[in-house]
Amino acid sequence: ALLALLRTDRVLAVRTHVNVDPAKLKSLRQRWSVKPSEMSKKTLNPIRAIVDGMKLTPNPEKPMIALSIGDPTVFGNLPTDDTVLQAMKEAIDSHKYNGYAPSVGYQKSREVVADFYSCPEAPLDGKDVILTSGCSQAIELAISVLCNPGDNILVPRPGFSLYKTLAVSMGIQVKHYNLLPEKSWEIDLQHLESLIDDKTACLIVNNPSNPCGSVFSREHLHKILSVASRNCIPILADEIYGDMVFPGCDFQPLAPLSSDVPILSCGGLAKRWLVPGWRMGWILIHDRNDIFGTAIREGLVKLSQRILGPCTVVQGALESILNDTPPEFYQGTISFLKSNSEICYSELSTVPGLNPVMPSGAMYIMVGIEMEHFPDFQNDVEFTERLVTEQSVFCLPATAFEYPNFFRIVVTVPEEMMIEACIRIREFCARHYRPRSQDSHELDQ
Amino acid sequence: ALLALLRTDRVLAVRTHVNVDPAKLKSLRQRWSVKPSEMSKKTLNPIRAIVDGMKLTPNPEKPMIALSIGDPTVFGNLPTDDTVLQAMKEAIDSHKYNGYAPSVGYQKSREVVADFYSCPEAPLDGKDVILTSGCSQAIELAISVLCNPGDNILVPRPGFSLYKTLAVSMGIQVKHYNLLPEKSWEIDLQHLESLIDDKTACLIVNNPSNPCGSVFSREHLHKILSVASRNCIPILADEIYGDMVFPGCDFQPLAPLSSDVPILSCGGLAKRWLVPGWRMGWILIHDRNDIFGTAIREGLVKLSQRILGPCTVVQGALESILNDTPPEFYQGTISFLKSNSEICYSELSTVPGLNPVMPSGAMYIMVGIEMEHFPDFQNDVEFTERLVTEQSVFCLPATAFEYPNFFRIVVTVPEEMMIEACIRIREFCARHYRPRSQDSHELDQ
Repeated sequence: ALLALLRTDRVLAVRTHVNVDPAKLKSLRQRWSVKPSEMSKKTLNPIRAIVDGMKLTPNPEKPMIALSIGDPTVFGNLPTDDTVLQAMKEAIDSHKYNGYAPSVGYQKSREVVADFYSCPEAPLDGKDVILTSGCSQAIELAISVLCNPGDNILVPRPGFSLYKTLAVSMGIQVKHYNLLPEKSWEIDLQHLESLIDDKTACLIVNNPSNPCGSVFSREHLHKILSVASRNCIPILADEIYGDMVFPGCDFQPLAPLSSDVPILSCGGLAKRWLVPGWRMGWILIHDRNDIFGTAIREGLVKLSQRILGPCTVVQGALESILNDTPPEFYQGTISFLKSNSEICYSELSTVPGLNPVMPSGAMYIMVGIEMEHFPDFQNDVEFTERLVTEQSVFCLPATAFEYPNFFRIVVTVPEEMMIEACIRIREFCARHYRPRSQDSHELDQ
Repeated sequence: ALLALLRTDRVLAVRTHVNVDPAKLKSLRQRWSVKPSEMSKKTLNPIRAIVDGMKLTPNPEKPMIALSIGDPTVFGNLPTDDTVLQAMKEAIDSHKYNGYAPSVGYQKSREVVADFYSCPEAPLDGKDVILTSGCSQAIELAISVLCNPGDNILVPRPGFSLYKTLAVSMGIQVKHYNLLPEKSWEIDLQHLESLIDDKTACLIVNNPSNPCGSVFSREHLHKILSVASRNCIPILADEIYGDMVFPGCDFQPLAPLSSDVPILSCGGLAKRWLVPGWRMGWILIHDRNDIFGTAIREGLVKLSQRILGPCTVVQGALESILNDTPPEFYQGTISFLKSNSEICYSELSTVPGLNPVMPSGAMYIMVGIEMEHFPDFQNDVEFTERLVTEQSVFCLPATAFEYPNFFRIVVTVPEEMMIEACIRIREFCARHYRPRSQDSHELDQ
């Protein structure tokens, strides 16, 4: 009753106040108006935006082949190793990994990751490792600690869309530097350097690359480091596909080559161990010249406390996953990816109007479309849309990677599906290819 | 060689430019200066800040008893149920939960959670559930979607510190509304309502409460909803301790009582199933009056794409965890917590100078300190610090919950430890208690 009285009083008080001071009227909330935040509105996933805008109606006479999904587990032909599953079950049975871990991960698990990646040129110990909820959170933390709203970051074009999604949602500007397909997707270093200004907070280097499947040479990595060094830009090295490179090629992590540039190297279990859903990622802090100092490390620890890191069971299993998985497992994955890439490349490189670029690692091939020879389609989005309609083959248009007139093929599908997909793509192109670009002639007149 | 030439050209070009336009000099970054972002600097964990500032040197003659850690797994006396562990192993053996799930969780897992919490007054289906990396991420997403920088949110005092940590890091102002210890920590509704203004984006209601262990009555929840309804404020209901209430008391989820107020109810496996490290949380979207509409749902989906949700193995295990865990497991946990709470309460309520408040659920007791009777200490931080030094018992000073002159006891420790801790606290208080507050008399003169 007292409470009711108080409430009535308040209502009266407010009403009186409104009469006296109309400016206060605003503060009365008289109807519902709940709107999503600016940040949520600015969180844009370009892949979703493009795919959701496409009319994807497969040809009912042909079974669908999706070459669009960057998840190696979809078709069941690339299972993880039994060692990995066994490690998880042992972690569960131990009853030791049910409570909270420190927000940056168990010390022991951090040390295991440090030992796995440590090398004489770039030694790591436990304190240099932050465990995260997948490589996505690793990238989010790295961008969050290095950049303020109004800063800009340099990201590859073509490139993985998450960098832009995260940056734009945080009010950070994205500047795209070009990769050069004719040079196996090496960075256009001159273009890269021309983008740097006093607001540049971070250079993102993705090697091996999604969507290109390219792997940078040691020499090229040295040149990238030179650009970063003379402009004093720290690097976020997205090395989630590290060591997923074809035989004869060599993956070189960036940090051991750096004498001064501080590097946050992001990785995880997702690709090499074929368990992307487990959300186990990490940041390796490389800072031999003490440029990050304690401040960046403390910043990462603080940010990690927002949502408290990855599942403890996976953390508990890490030691066995990293140390006991047999080399044959990794080799098996890689030789499969290489074989499928070669099938796809050799098939599509003889298709008039297409220009695939042979990858050296990861699990993707980028294919250029000579749009002038396909006047039926305005762009790569229409091209790939119609490829679904007619042939039930779905590839991501590279517009999703800020790179029009290409499409990306995921090479993790079973071999027979890869072959069938290439046959259908050939048929599709043969039907729509025009030897000369009549449209553009007409436009010229 | 061409590249080297280009680079030389660029350097020359830049140098020339500098001579021409000194303003451009700024854009040359000539030395390293990598600083942590403003957001990381604003991400403050008050518990860490306070605990790190304390001199915690236990008495070497007494083994340490930590009553400070809100993790029920620490002492091994509250294991999760075998059903829960078995569900995880079956999810692993199925080989079905290694790939990416949708960023909001598998549809099937969302439906399982919806079915578990659905009731006639507040029906839920799969689309109303967002799976998250622990309840922390659920709270982060809920705040992120409802609030913009410059808005304010209403949070309980005393209250869980994460709300403030997250809000301040996002530039959102925090306004504390009072809980009333003399009314079993009910909300001071008049105070709550007085804080509302046109920038108030969200009311956070934590029931059952950390750190109070209080459980609101249905009548009180109705009154809270009335305040939200007439001021048109959506509610974030942190119900992570839902159903962890003592026999004779009844936990009432907020949403079924609401006819209009839209509610994001946050929960997870952490407490009730005793696996906080697994990072499985969820948001239940209650919006029967269509006030959130599709916009808030879409905002949550977009935000979930930043780091892609919880571990898929736990998602795969959810159906069995929720549906097959025997009721005896929950009952066993609750009766242990009640018994320990009663021991602690009855022991400490006869200690001169202390005023414990009997909880009705969760796993905490708040204990008031009559500071005027303990002139040796300035505040709860000094009190608890010296309790460690002399008695090797560590309780969190409630300053960590914005509530000075109280401390919080976690009641998940084994019974004999609880008893021993109470004996030591009694001894400590007996030694420092002064019947009359001589200090304040002196000050008065």
